[in-house]
Amino acid sequence: MNPRPKLRSPPLAPAFFPSSPPSPPPSSHNSKASTSKMPRKSLLRPTLAITCFLALFTLYSFLFYTPPNYTSNTSIKLGNHDSSDASKKARIYLYDLPRRFTYGVIESYAAARGGEPVENDALLKYPGNQHSAECLVVNPIRPATMNVSHDRAAYNDEQTQEDLMEWLEEQVYWKRNNGWDHVIICQDPNALYKVIDRVKNGVLLVSDFGRLARNQASLVKDVIMPYSHRIKTYEGDIGLEKRKSLLFFMGNRYRKEGGKIRDLLFHVLENEREVIIKHGAQSRESRRAASQGMHTSKFCLHPAGDTPSACRLFDAIVSLCIPVIVSDHIELPFEDAIDYRKIAIFVDSSTAVTPGNLVKLLRRVSPGKILEFQKELKKVKRYFEYEDPDGTVKEIWRQVASKLPLIKLMSNRDKRIVVRDLVEQDCACLCSNQSGVHTTLR
Amino acid sequence: MNPRPKLRSPPLAPAFFPSSPPSPPPSSHNSKASTSKMPRKSLLRPTLAITCFLALFTLYSFLFYTPPNYTSNTSIKLGNHDSSDASKKARIYLYDLPRRFTYGVIESYAAARGGEPVENDALLKYPGNQHSAECLVVNPIRPATMNVSHDRAAYNDEQTQEDLMEWLEEQVYWKRNNGWDHVIICQDPNALYKVIDRVKNGVLLVSDFGRLARNQASLVKDVIMPYSHRIKTYEGDIGLEKRKSLLFFMGNRYRKEGGKIRDLLFHVLENEREVIIKHGAQSRESRRAASQGMHTSKFCLHPAGDTPSACRLFDAIVSLCIPVIVSDHIELPFEDAIDYRKIAIFVDSSTAVTPGNLVKLLRRVSPGKILEFQKELKKVKRYFEYEDPDGTVKEIWRQVASKLPLIKLMSNRDKRIVVRDLVEQDCACLCSNQSGVHTTLR
Repeated sequence: MNPRPKLRSPPLAPAFFPSSPPSPPPSSHNSKASTSKMPRKSLLRPTLAITCFLALFTLYSFLFYTPPNYTSNTSIKLGNHDSSDASKKARIYLYDLPRRFTYGVIESYAAARGGEPVENDALLKYPGNQHSAECLVVNPIRPATMNVSHDRAAYNDEQTQEDLMEWLEEQVYWKRNNGWDHVIICQDPNALYKVIDRVKNGVLLVSDFGRLARNQASLVKDVIMPYSHRIKTYEGDIGLEKRKSLLFFMGNRYRKEGGKIRDLLFHVLENEREVIIKHGAQSRESRRAASQGMHTSKFCLHPAGDTPSACRLFDAIVSLCIPVIVSDHIELPFEDAIDYRKIAIFVDSSTAVTPGNLVKLLRRVSPGKILEFQKELKKVKRYFEYEDPDGTVKEIWRQVASKLPLIKLMSNRDKRIVVRDLVEQDCACLCSNQSGVHTTLR
Repeated sequence: MNPRPKLRSPPLAPAFFPSSPPSPPPSSHNSKASTSKMPRKSLLRPTLAITCFLALFTLYSFLFYTPPNYTSNTSIKLGNHDSSDASKKARIYLYDLPRRFTYGVIESYAAARGGEPVENDALLKYPGNQHSAECLVVNPIRPATMNVSHDRAAYNDEQTQEDLMEWLEEQVYWKRNNGWDHVIICQDPNALYKVIDRVKNGVLLVSDFGRLARNQASLVKDVIMPYSHRIKTYEGDIGLEKRKSLLFFMGNRYRKEGGKIRDLLFHVLENEREVIIKHGAQSRESRRAASQGMHTSKFCLHPAGDTPSACRLFDAIVSLCIPVIVSDHIELPFEDAIDYRKIAIFVDSSTAVTPGNLVKLLRRVSPGKILEFQKELKKVKRYFEYEDPDGTVKEIWRQVASKLPLIKLMSNRDKRIVVRDLVEQDCACLCSNQSGVHTTLR
C-alpha cells in the first residue's frame, strides 16, 4: 500500500537549458552561474524548465513549491555528495501552464468518474499510479480497460496533446533552442504519442523505448525513470530465514508484444515446487498479496509487460527480492550508477522458457551469493524511492544534468547547420557490438 | 612558423575508465575518488588511460611527464574553473606501450628518410604535423604524396595496427570494459583505419567523421579535436586598419571528395577585387605567406578538404580572421562550449559557388559587426592553442570527462545484455531534425 500515492509520482515536465537566462528574471539561487559569460562555464548555466502536460502541479507541490508567478525555478546540485561543489548547479524553470493542461485534466478525470466539482483546486485528487503520466484520462488505445464512464466528451486526450504543443511552440524558450533544452515526462508508454515527433528534441523521461522510434528517443538523449513501486518497501534486514519460497510472480498472465512470454513462463513454472506464480489484476487486495509474496521469496520474476519494462522490477528491489529479469529488450534506470548484475539476474527469453532451466539455475545460487545480492539491493534501494530526498527525483535530475554538454552541443550546432544533401537522417549514435549472454548468473 | 611543432601535437592515447582501480596501484592524487564505493560516486571514479599507437611518448613528455614505470596517471579537473570543485577529478592512466609502437615507429620514420640511428630515444625527433597521428609513416592510401624513400620494408603500417590491437586486446583493462573506457587518438582521417572496428567502443579523438561510419564514431561517443594551427598566432588587437583584404585563401586547389568545392570557389573568386585566393602546397614559405595573408584580411575562406575539416579553420581563428566556412558536413571542436555563429560565418556550398554571392554577402558585413566577430575570436582563441595550459589539451579532457556517465552506462549495460533478436543494430542515437540555413549571416 502506498500511503501517499499522488506524491510518489515524479514530475511531469519539459525543461529548458537556455543559453541565456529567461526574460522574466527568476529569483537567483546561484547568481554565479547566471552571470557567467565564458563559454567554458556554459555547462553550469541556468536551466529553464517548463511544467508540462498533465501532472505538472505535482511537481510544484512536491518538488518545488513556488508562488504562482510566471516562472518558478530551483537549483539542483549535480555530481556527487561532496559539499565543496556547491557551484555545480543546474537551474530548472517551470512553465506555469494554462489551467486546462493541469488541474483541468484532473477535473475532467474526476468528472468522468462521477466526481463532484470541488471548490478549490487543492482539493482535486491526483490519480495515483505506477506512471506519473498515467492520468491520460481517456487513453484511446485501451479504453476498455480503463472503466471510464460515458461522460467522455468532457476531455479529449489527443486534442489536449495538440493544444499543449500549440501552446508550447509559441513559447519564446521553446523557440530559442528548438526544444533541445526542455525536459518532458512521458513515462506512460502512450504518453504524448500524438505529438511525440514535435517534442522529441527534448530530454524525455520514459520507462523504456518500447513504443518509441530510434529517432525519437534513446539512451543517449533521454532518461529511463523507474516506475513508482506499488507495494510496500521491505523494512527488515537481509537474510534467508523468512524467505522460504524460491521464486515469486504475481501479475497479468496475458500481455501483448514482448509480454507474451508471460504465458510461456506460467507454463514452465506453475508446477515447480517452491515457486509461486499467480495470475492477478491490479487491486488493493492483490498488492497486499504481492507484498507478502515478495517479502518472503528469494527471487522475484520480472517478465516483460506490454513494453519491456514493468513496475514489478521496482517492487522486487524494494522488497529485497532478487529480480530475475526475463525481458530481452529492457532498459534500466540510472545504469551508469548501478551495475544491475549485482542486484538482479538476467536470463534471455529462450533459456527462461525451456522447461526446468530457470529453477535449476536459481536453485544453484548459494545462500552466500543470495546474501550478497540482498546487500547490494539494500544499497541501491534509495534510487527507487521517490520520497527519499536522496532518491529517485534527485537521481533523475542528476541524469538530466549529465546531458547538459550534449544539449548545449545540439543547440549550438542546430543553429549553424547549413542546407545539406543527406543520404540518411542526421543522427549521432552510440552502437553496442555486444552479442549477449544467456544469463548473467555465474 | 611553429617554434615547437612536436609539442603542439595532442596526446595520442586510448584511455580507460575502469570500475575499479587497476592492479598496479597508481600514486594517488585523489584518494577520495579511488576509495569511493557508492554507485552514485562512480562518475568520479579514477580513469585509466593507455598510451597508444604512435605518438604516445609526446603525451608522456608534454602532458604528463612520468617516471618509466608500468602505468602512469594524472588527475584531471572537470567542469568549470571554480576552485571549490577539487573533488571533481577524473583520473587517466597511460599504458607504457611496447617500444615498437612508440619510439620504434619514429625510428622507422627517420630511417626511411635516410636519418642516422641515434644513441638515445630522447634524440628522436617527432615529426611535426597538423595531425597528432600523422606519423603513420607509410600511409598506404597516399604514398605518392609522402616522398618516402625506397626503404619501406622497415615499417609496415597496417601490420603495426594489427600488432597494436593484438597487444591491446590482451590487456586486462581493455577486456574489463570491452574498451568503452579507453580514449584513442586517431585524428588523421586514415589513422587506425585497418582496426577501427576493433577500437570503436573507445572515445575516439578525431578531426571529423569524414571516413568513419555511423556505428564507428559520432558526436555522442567521440571528441572532435582541432588541428594544430600551422601558422603564427596574431598577437595584435582587434581592428580593421591593418586588414585591407576582404577575403583570403591559400591552399591546395584540388582535393578529393567534398574538397572538390575548392576548384569551384577558385573560379568564382579569383577575379574579385580585395580577394586573395592562391593555390599553394605545404611549405615553410607558404606558411609564411599564409600568416601574412590571414593577419591582414577580414575574412578567411575555409572550404572542405578531402574530409570536411581542415587545419585552415584553426589558422584563421588564431589570426583573428573571421572564418567563412564552406563545408556542409563539418563538425566542430568543443561545440557545447563555443557558439560558432559568433566567430564564423557558415555558407552552404551551393550558395557559395553561385557567382557573386559570397563577396556580396561579405561586403555587407558592417565594420561594427566585424569587430564583434574579432572580439569573440579573441575570447575563444585559447581553445585552439595546444600549448596554453588553459587550452586545447585541457578542453579535450573536459570533453572526454563529460562522456563518463555514458561510458559507465555502456560498460554496465554491455555486461548484462542477453541474446536478443535484433532487427537492426543496437544503437542509441541523437537525431537532428534541422533542415538547415543557407547562411548564418544576418
